[in-house]
Amino acid sequence: MRAVVLDNTGVKFRSDYPNPQPKTGEILVRVLMAGVCETDLQLIRGYMGFQGVLGHEFVGIAESGPFQGRRVVGEINASCETCEYCQRGLANHCPHRTVLGILNRDGAFADYLSIPQQNLHLVPDDISTRAAVLTEPLAAAFQILEQLRVSAGQTVLVLGDGRLGNLCAQVLAHAGCRVTVVGKHARKLEILRKSGIATLLLADLPADRSNDIVVDCTGSATGLATALSVVRPRGTIVLKTTVAGEQHISLAPVVIDEVTIIGSRCGPFPVALAALQRQQIDVMSLIDGIAPLESTLAMFERARTEPVLKLLLEINSEAA
Amino acid sequence: MRAVVLDNTGVKFRSDYPNPQPKTGEILVRVLMAGVCETDLQLIRGYMGFQGVLGHEFVGIAESGPFQGRRVVGEINASCETCEYCQRGLANHCPHRTVLGILNRDGAFADYLSIPQQNLHLVPDDISTRAAVLTEPLAAAFQILEQLRVSAGQTVLVLGDGRLGNLCAQVLAHAGCRVTVVGKHARKLEILRKSGIATLLLADLPADRSNDIVVDCTGSATGLATALSVVRPRGTIVLKTTVAGEQHISLAPVVIDEVTIIGSRCGPFPVALAALQRQQIDVMSLIDGIAPLESTLAMFERARTEPVLKLLLEINSEAA
Repeated sequence: MRAVVLDNTGVKFRSDYPNPQPKTGEILVRVLMAGVCETDLQLIRGYMGFQGVLGHEFVGIAESGPFQGRRVVGEINASCETCEYCQRGLANHCPHRTVLGILNRDGAFADYLSIPQQNLHLVPDDISTRAAVLTEPLAAAFQILEQLRVSAGQTVLVLGDGRLGNLCAQVLAHAGCRVTVVGKHARKLEILRKSGIATLLLADLPADRSNDIVVDCTGSATGLATALSVVRPRGTIVLKTTVAGEQHISLAPVVIDEVTIIGSRCGPFPVALAALQRQQIDVMSLIDGIAPLESTLAMFERARTEPVLKLLLEINSEAA
Repeated sequence: MRAVVLDNTGVKFRSDYPNPQPKTGEILVRVLMAGVCETDLQLIRGYMGFQGVLGHEFVGIAESGPFQGRRVVGEINASCETCEYCQRGLANHCPHRTVLGILNRDGAFADYLSIPQQNLHLVPDDISTRAAVLTEPLAAAFQILEQLRVSAGQTVLVLGDGRLGNLCAQVLAHAGCRVTVVGKHARKLEILRKSGIATLLLADLPADRSNDIVVDCTGSATGLATALSVVRPRGTIVLKTTVAGEQHISLAPVVIDEVTIIGSRCGPFPVALAALQRQQIDVMSLIDGIAPLESTLAMFERARTEPVLKLLLEINSEAA
């Protein structure tokens, strides 16, 4: 099959990659569409030491099981189901887990992927395939509400006007927070303003320590330091993006101002799908390009060098 | 009066320092005893850029006001009482605050200090002056329980066998947690074992990511990295000690494992005094030396170079 494969010589498009062989409990999924994520670019730079097929945001057709022949999206953490974490409902933190296209499991930039049945969620008919590709990052945005009790009227600063920053801002605005997104890209900020969200250029960010919550979606080594300069004492910083390598930071303000820092990763797919179905969150205006799987490396280059939001890969058509 | 003064030429004992002039609402306190804290050593190294009389842990005699002639301890943050933080009961975070011996306010290593009346707490007669000097660090240890809901049986690792690590461990053990203190000093760990607390030499610490809560009391730039290597996914790290300067740390595990980091500083004096009165917490075995104010610089040197717990300064006798 066709697949975009990362190994220690770099990332390549291949047309001779072996089809996945589903294990017990796993379902073969024919991939329709997949999304390029900042994490893919970080993996290519060596983050996590991943080797295999990249890609973890997808919509596909289940080839067997209860959803056979229907469109599905899939949670990316494949857990063992037996350990203490899995038993406690924290399967996303199973120490034995594999992660689709990120850790010891081939991903979605391919004709087929294999994933445990329990990871799959049916895509309601009234959600387009393009919108449904955004389920995974949207679920990650909703994870903030799973971890943090937010109140209407709280001031939230979202650092980063990229894909995840946009989605986090929309989710928190819907939860009643007074959200401002801080970014570097006039066009991306304009898209947010059309959704009714206040924006600010990073250069204009006042060093005003008044924000109840600051969400770091910068993917940058300086994100936390910026967050610490604008969060109020006793406020909360949510770290949504991972940064490869070490950061140099003074943590004394965390103690002095009794700031809480919460790491936040994958989120609830059913909540994200319900929000997409109600058209509560605008994901369509994030899509900046769609290309076939053969063009994946060019799409990586666009994602790396151009101020785009979401780039999608069209891998197979819905008709078999 | 006598005072231990830090300025840009270093720290000196002086016998000619002007007596403090209490402002409206402030009380003159004749200092009986004061404690040397790691923060004093950091201030001498340039942390916070403080200049003035050092010292923030004290017991003294109020010279006026409702507690006149009686022993008092004092909260160290002197707030404005009018700003939004003060109005919301977060006076410790008042942006206009001064902090005794730390920020824009002369401290306790002197014959007299001046502090707002509202900061003072009466020392019950059945608490010795020596024990009462530990009220401030003990309150800081109790602050963890103000910020974090702990449950009986939770596993807690306290990193650091120093003064604050010892007190945090005792407080959390009393709250029902299963506490282990990790340190480098056999003698300090032995003192903890006598209080019934499990201990471990840092060299023997397994990289076992199983602890519900990790409290960093190391005062070391490597404390957070160690904490991240032993906290469980979705666990909590409490930062109790400030570290001057930048730390170099990989924060990706915070996001991947959805760890919560809570900065924790000053705590509730009434809770600490009540615990001292009930003799719930052993503070006396922490006291490793008592010297007159004239010997403060030698005590700093001991605190810096020897594995001591708490060193006290005997400044005035109770009889006027």
